[in-house]
Amino acid sequence: MSEFQLTPEGTSQQHQDRLYVSSETRKLTLPPAGLPLLHSGSLKEIEVKYETYGSLNAQKANAVLICTPLSMDHHAAGWYSDQDEKPGWWDEMIGPGKAIDTNIYYVIASNMLGGCRGTTGPSSLNPDTQKPYGKDFPRITVEDIVQVQALLIEQLGIPYLAAVIGGSLGGMQALQWSVAYPDKVKKCICIAAAPHLSPQALGFEIVGRKALLNDKNFGSGDFYDKPETPDEGLALARMIGLLTYLSADSMESKFSRTRKDEYDANCFETGYDVENYLTHNSQKFVSRFDANSYLHITYALDTFDLEESHGSLANAFEKSRAEFLLVALSSDWLFPPSQSRHLCRELLNLGKIASLVELDSPYGHDAFLLEVENLSKLIGAFLERNEVGPPTSPKMRSTSTVENQTGSHRVFDPSMDYGLVGNLVEPGSHILDIGCGDGELIDNLYLSKQVTGFGIDIDLENVIKCLTRDVPVVHGDVNKVFNLFGYNSFDYAVLSQTIQMLRRPGFILKEMLRVAKKSIIVFPNFGHFRNRLTLGLKGTMPIADAVDFKWWENPDIHQFSFKDFQKLCAVENIMIEKVLPIGQSALSRSMIRMGMVNTGADVIVVRLGSKH
Amino acid sequence: MSEFQLTPEGTSQQHQDRLYVSSETRKLTLPPAGLPLLHSGSLKEIEVKYETYGSLNAQKANAVLICTPLSMDHHAAGWYSDQDEKPGWWDEMIGPGKAIDTNIYYVIASNMLGGCRGTTGPSSLNPDTQKPYGKDFPRITVEDIVQVQALLIEQLGIPYLAAVIGGSLGGMQALQWSVAYPDKVKKCICIAAAPHLSPQALGFEIVGRKALLNDKNFGSGDFYDKPETPDEGLALARMIGLLTYLSADSMESKFSRTRKDEYDANCFETGYDVENYLTHNSQKFVSRFDANSYLHITYALDTFDLEESHGSLANAFEKSRAEFLLVALSSDWLFPPSQSRHLCRELLNLGKIASLVELDSPYGHDAFLLEVENLSKLIGAFLERNEVGPPTSPKMRSTSTVENQTGSHRVFDPSMDYGLVGNLVEPGSHILDIGCGDGELIDNLYLSKQVTGFGIDIDLENVIKCLTRDVPVVHGDVNKVFNLFGYNSFDYAVLSQTIQMLRRPGFILKEMLRVAKKSIIVFPNFGHFRNRLTLGLKGTMPIADAVDFKWWENPDIHQFSFKDFQKLCAVENIMIEKVLPIGQSALSRSMIRMGMVNTGADVIVVRLGSKH
Repeated sequence: MSEFQLTPEGTSQQHQDRLYVSSETRKLTLPPAGLPLLHSGSLKEIEVKYETYGSLNAQKANAVLICTPLSMDHHAAGWYSDQDEKPGWWDEMIGPGKAIDTNIYYVIASNMLGGCRGTTGPSSLNPDTQKPYGKDFPRITVEDIVQVQALLIEQLGIPYLAAVIGGSLGGMQALQWSVAYPDKVKKCICIAAAPHLSPQALGFEIVGRKALLNDKNFGSGDFYDKPETPDEGLALARMIGLLTYLSADSMESKFSRTRKDEYDANCFETGYDVENYLTHNSQKFVSRFDANSYLHITYALDTFDLEESHGSLANAFEKSRAEFLLVALSSDWLFPPSQSRHLCRELLNLGKIASLVELDSPYGHDAFLLEVENLSKLIGAFLERNEVGPPTSPKMRSTSTVENQTGSHRVFDPSMDYGLVGNLVEPGSHILDIGCGDGELIDNLYLSKQVTGFGIDIDLENVIKCLTRDVPVVHGDVNKVFNLFGYNSFDYAVLSQTIQMLRRPGFILKEMLRVAKKSIIVFPNFGHFRNRLTLGLKGTMPIADAVDFKWWENPDIHQFSFKDFQKLCAVENIMIEKVLPIGQSALSRSMIRMGMVNTGADVIVVRLGSKH
Repeated sequence: MSEFQLTPEGTSQQHQDRLYVSSETRKLTLPPAGLPLLHSGSLKEIEVKYETYGSLNAQKANAVLICTPLSMDHHAAGWYSDQDEKPGWWDEMIGPGKAIDTNIYYVIASNMLGGCRGTTGPSSLNPDTQKPYGKDFPRITVEDIVQVQALLIEQLGIPYLAAVIGGSLGGMQALQWSVAYPDKVKKCICIAAAPHLSPQALGFEIVGRKALLNDKNFGSGDFYDKPETPDEGLALARMIGLLTYLSADSMESKFSRTRKDEYDANCFETGYDVENYLTHNSQKFVSRFDANSYLHITYALDTFDLEESHGSLANAFEKSRAEFLLVALSSDWLFPPSQSRHLCRELLNLGKIASLVELDSPYGHDAFLLEVENLSKLIGAFLERNEVGPPTSPKMRSTSTVENQTGSHRVFDPSMDYGLVGNLVEPGSHILDIGCGDGELIDNLYLSKQVTGFGIDIDLENVIKCLTRDVPVVHGDVNKVFNLFGYNSFDYAVLSQTIQMLRRPGFILKEMLRVAKKSIIVFPNFGHFRNRLTLGLKGTMPIADAVDFKWWENPDIHQFSFKDFQKLCAVENIMIEKVLPIGQSALSRSMIRMGMVNTGADVIVVRLGSKH
């Protein structure tokens, strides 16, 4: 297998740094009776409007599909002409040298089934009547939307996708791809989405649809030849949507309580910023969207539920071969981060390779279109390595050649950790590295001992480096992420130079021995004789040698000696299987040799197991 | 001034333990030209429907007004007859021996102006036309609603209110009472409300109103003689309201993703629990509410803004003489706790007496009707003391006769704190007691040295005890509440036996010297010789004598000696003005006498000031 070559981006004409694009429409080849839909009948004819950026390479191994959210279309990137006011909706992410790099990847974006921008939908002509479908358009599902995308991909001659990427409803489609086409998806990036809507999100969707249906001009949905269309109803539904895309904090900073000069109190207008925003943006939406498309697509979104349709998430994802990157947005309450965590837990329990990132952002659900810088870094890192060939069963792997990076919170030379930990694990082990920094330990252990690994780190830059190294990683606080991992998921859990910073070290030790058979702890020994002298003679509290902090800023909130540690293990029923005391000075080392571990060791490495 | 007598509840007939009540309607006496409204015209006639519970005492000093939220009415408590299915909406709070005790207080609840349950509103007969007002009903405001309540109170012969109490829109009315009638409100309890809506809450309100106005049967609002009424539109508005009253978590536990057996996919019904809930509850609301009342009352709510109408909250509340109890609900996103904190800060900056409680509840905004047990305790405690006489300018006071309570987190005998701290403060000082426990220190210092005080505590039971003692208190985490207090708000800030548990002790010390001229810190000295011996000889880390914890559960995350503390003060530019070392043993005390403070003192009390 070889890495992709950098192939020059060839098909699009370049003017300055713009990517010029055009859209195409393809009439899909369907079975003679039409395409059967999941729940309701079939469609005799389906046209799909789509765009592509970059070129399909000779191995046909570099195709990336962008799945679109509700209100976006096939024009994901580039410019049609210099007369355009703006480029495609995700242009900041897609293009030569960008995160989804069209110098490397062949990127496809299509308008979805049921839409109103060129792909068959309720406003398309019904071949039976030569009138718009209107109320006769069948109920579609996310499964149907993805099925149509799969036909497009197949009929474009693409055997499998290097990646499928989507946010919001697009993220649901990406998940469905990995479920329905396990042999066609190598990487799945799901941003601000979930296997189903939360009851809260669903509630708002339902009310939005009811408001649209209650519009006097909606009738039964056959309004295309009527002078009046259900614009007000569509605007109401969109307003509810807009409110769920913003966070309370972003609204607080975006909108003042000042009123515009003129507003109609007789019509109960308030004149406040937020009302003007809702009116303006919903009108913009109404001018480019079809009310029936809105109903059908949101209905597909609301009734999508991989748990309901497969019995469980485990059943749904069982055959998936994709590597997952799940990105949640901290202030998103339409698809809250708890849903991404839940999905990640299920994937990890199935032995899938899944990374989870929670991007800190004030912008609510909208952040998936706004947090371009961090999303670019994450997606770019996740897509950086790719091997030619169809998806295989998931296996942990690392192929690092990345040079040493700084930025890990580890205070020792990482090679020290590597040596210490490496001596205690068997070749081929599967390890969880807690506070993994930039992933170097796992990377080194992979190269030297074929150890596969999974990291946890709270720092986003470290997480990005892990992804670049192909080290799967959970972005989060050590105190809060253990519930992602099931019993005995790993051979070893490693915690280096961190335990003394934790509020509940006993809890973490127990969690480590729940998720791994053994654990390895590296900690500074506050029983070292220099520390004793500091308090005993100088009367100030000792500070760990390696950390040059003032006491009131000291992150080591539970200082303890090796003897203290032994007491904790006894109480928690933990067996200390092996002890490696490290002395930095000759005096320390000779004390250790004389058996004075608690007095001589600067740092102690222990391997722990459960008592049975 | 005397405390209220316990007067037997006389007027209502008692059957078992039920309070039997009846409602009354009063035609208000108005100026000849009618009652002028704040923004639009006047009303020639106003009738108010109301109920009273308990009896007005001889001094007319025990009246309490309940301000009602949007969808509730004058029937706040009791039973009309045994045939009733349920009692008044806040019956658990109001009655003999309950939090709002009708054995003590004379309680009044009225239907609000603009309503549809007996008080003049859009469905009432317009005296000019003898038809319902409909579209001609003038735009009303919260100020108008409260003005009508004030006329009722006056015309019932009540000179002032011992308390005005309300939640949600009722809480806004309570605030408006304290602003508009400073000489008539002694205590103001504002639950889950704010001086104005957040942009997010406002957005949902606006969309709800637009959905109602877009109903084909609404027309211009004169639908009372029409066969079809705008029920669907009103239901839509109510559904949006219902969604904002619940929290995401409570919806997650309340609603499953199961669907009912029959639902109409042709009408885009989903059949999910949440849809059934919305449909059922909105229909119930439609059957008892008038669409025009909904429009007018929500418009009043949405445009209420004490900041906008008075230029600033400081202007609005400047003359208020009320003591405030602000209660926020942790999962309320319609009136988030941040709004209560903001209001509390403004009140405290004005020198008002205000307590702030954040009730931990999963139920969202609805919690104000559901968290009866804790609300009862809080309101009962806040109302327990009351003196006859109209409101006076706010002054801190304490009249404790409460017996000593346990439950404070203080580890020493509180009388020790009292002695230690009492020796360092001048009579008549104003102090902030951080981690105040049950308020005993402030109480004792008031009795012995006329010290007035304000507490902070994280424990709700302690907060309730403080309220019972008339010690104003903020319920919250020491690390997060300092921004409530302005520069030099106090003479002294006191922090006893807590600093070693804080992540950022330097930050807290600086904050204390920002909000108070001086501060007093009591802390365990980890430099005490016994601690030194523990580490030096036994090789285990010392644990503060007073705290019997295992090291890994030790809340004292920053252990430090007096010398360490001196170093921190030097770095932070803090002057140690006075040191009181405390030795518990004779040996300790003799060491202290010999000047060996850092070696001999078990506990150290310091008075700090800023260096200038």
